[in-house]
Amino acid sequence: MLLDADIHQRWSDDKAIVKYLPERYQDDGIVAPELLYRNPGGFLKQDEIPKNGGKPGSDIEKIVEDHLDRHDIDYGMFTGNSWFNLAALPNRDYANELARAYNEWLIEECLTVDERFLGSMYVAPKAPQKGAKLIREYGSHPQIRQVMLPGGAEVPYGRPQYWPLYEAAEEMNLAVAIHPFSEGHGTSNPPTGAGHPNSYIEWHTLLGTYYMGQLASIVTEGVLVEYPNLRFGFIEGGYGWLPHFMWRLDKNWKGLRSQAPWLEEKPSHYIRKNVWFASQPVEEPEKPEYHDQILEMMHADETLIFASDYPHWDGDDPMWGLPPMDEEMERAIKFENAMELWDLPANPSELN
Amino acid sequence: MLLDADIHQRWSDDKAIVKYLPERYQDDGIVAPELLYRNPGGFLKQDEIPKNGGKPGSDIEKIVEDHLDRHDIDYGMFTGNSWFNLAALPNRDYANELARAYNEWLIEECLTVDERFLGSMYVAPKAPQKGAKLIREYGSHPQIRQVMLPGGAEVPYGRPQYWPLYEAAEEMNLAVAIHPFSEGHGTSNPPTGAGHPNSYIEWHTLLGTYYMGQLASIVTEGVLVEYPNLRFGFIEGGYGWLPHFMWRLDKNWKGLRSQAPWLEEKPSHYIRKNVWFASQPVEEPEKPEYHDQILEMMHADETLIFASDYPHWDGDDPMWGLPPMDEEMERAIKFENAMELWDLPANPSELN
Repeated sequence: MLLDADIHQRWSDDKAIVKYLPERYQDDGIVAPELLYRNPGGFLKQDEIPKNGGKPGSDIEKIVEDHLDRHDIDYGMFTGNSWFNLAALPNRDYANELARAYNEWLIEECLTVDERFLGSMYVAPKAPQKGAKLIREYGSHPQIRQVMLPGGAEVPYGRPQYWPLYEAAEEMNLAVAIHPFSEGHGTSNPPTGAGHPNSYIEWHTLLGTYYMGQLASIVTEGVLVEYPNLRFGFIEGGYGWLPHFMWRLDKNWKGLRSQAPWLEEKPSHYIRKNVWFASQPVEEPEKPEYHDQILEMMHADETLIFASDYPHWDGDDPMWGLPPMDEEMERAIKFENAMELWDLPANPSELN
Repeated sequence: MLLDADIHQRWSDDKAIVKYLPERYQDDGIVAPELLYRNPGGFLKQDEIPKNGGKPGSDIEKIVEDHLDRHDIDYGMFTGNSWFNLAALPNRDYANELARAYNEWLIEECLTVDERFLGSMYVAPKAPQKGAKLIREYGSHPQIRQVMLPGGAEVPYGRPQYWPLYEAAEEMNLAVAIHPFSEGHGTSNPPTGAGHPNSYIEWHTLLGTYYMGQLASIVTEGVLVEYPNLRFGFIEGGYGWLPHFMWRLDKNWKGLRSQAPWLEEKPSHYIRKNVWFASQPVEEPEKPEYHDQILEMMHADETLIFASDYPHWDGDDPMWGLPPMDEEMERAIKFENAMELWDLPANPSELN
């Protein structure tokens, strides 16, 4: 079996979304902050341009044929187009309505195409109460298995203001996924403490740092003590940094646990139990054995899931994306771990 | 031989510094932003309180006796008290004068105590032209071997506005060291793209992320192409993240090198050649062999230097701080690498 945690489908025309917006937001098209770091060659694989000439990812049938069928993928998780950047929009109500419109479009026009598709529903991080309502409204759709949050935000995701989202996600048995794109623009913070990087090469190299900030917050603020069944997916932020991060956080907890007295176990316990990391962009170390060593250090047999990032040109092909590894480890990464993250039946037809 | 890259000496009373300030800044004592993340138990080892009751690190003679002599340290680098946070001060001129006053005090009252002490001179990152002048003024003192920059700033350290500092440091044969403390307060950015963490345990866990932001900027902006003999020391930001960071940056460079066409080699080449990382806080992985693996992955035989962080309670003792390792590796970390970073003679009496 093979599960792909990160497939970017998109609408070919903003009208596809605008029609689901309330009338008060229909007149201007969509206004959302865009990433200001230019990716040379654009983000998209040019060999995935649909026959009608739209952008790669905008023809859902083509995704079925070129990706699911070609690679024998059992489940493919739609992650949408993170350019929505709902965390970086100043207007909470508008962001919430964009999230709702996306969810409608996802259910009506994407998930219907093939039962192997799973959906990530969007919420606006600045409107957690409204987001919790959306989760309870759309979260019972059998193919919707997670709630999507953008990687960068005004304040870290461990803060109590977000907890209504987590309460609703746990109640609806949905994972919460984090995906990059909102870092460093709109109302978001500079990507690191160093300030705004100059170019996309820096911005993308630093993906892991945005995730380390969010994960430190989620774990130390006690989110996973309060919601022990909540599952997080960290998508497209890498994983080679995770051993260092878990060691450092565990070590600091030994000396500083008075700052997080609500933690009943060492921090890495919660990460290994409740958090998964997507493989793309795969680590490409100097020597192949380093990859195996990193997998062991991070307990990848429990924590890593495969993702392709289709149809982005820097994505990892399901055939060649992962380096050769132990068979048991490969099985865990290619489907067992994702089955747990999304609580899936072995056969898509059993989803209900 | 043994070199210690991070010894925090301090003045017992602000007057020690104020007397070196120009008259216009003498009336109010010192005004500088303080770290707002409370370290439980304070930062300092209580068994290093001087006999006169001052703060640990304020009695230089005691540092000689309790640290240099006790551990047979050949060279000990003074890093001062990073609470100056000169990058986080709004007033450039005042920050520059604080830096000058610190440098005077360092030379007059610290370096004179023992020839084994080396000094890090301060500059104000917001006043690079003035900082370059300070470097040319104080940098010829034989014990001064590096220029200190705080880890967090308004804009990343690769930007051209800082290059006058680098030009002067290269000319004076001084290393440039970065040390944390200014991240997330004063005029600095939030520590990560996630926003302001809640507690010290988060802030400290994320030290590596601030450094990744700075290092990505310094390397991709071409600082080390323009100043090929400039040497950087990244102090107290950890090192377990470095393999991931170098692999990611090299991989991205392959696909995105049009964004940094001035790089003549892959990014990790510059890091291995021009950048050193201090060992404290030492990584404490789950299994001892993971530490050896990380050392190999990061080319620690070229890149890692020992630091104690004396007199902080979470410092690494020169006796027990490093885990057991291959003898050759230990020699590189304990002195060979630092000798290169600071271009030192084998015997302190030969410094001139």
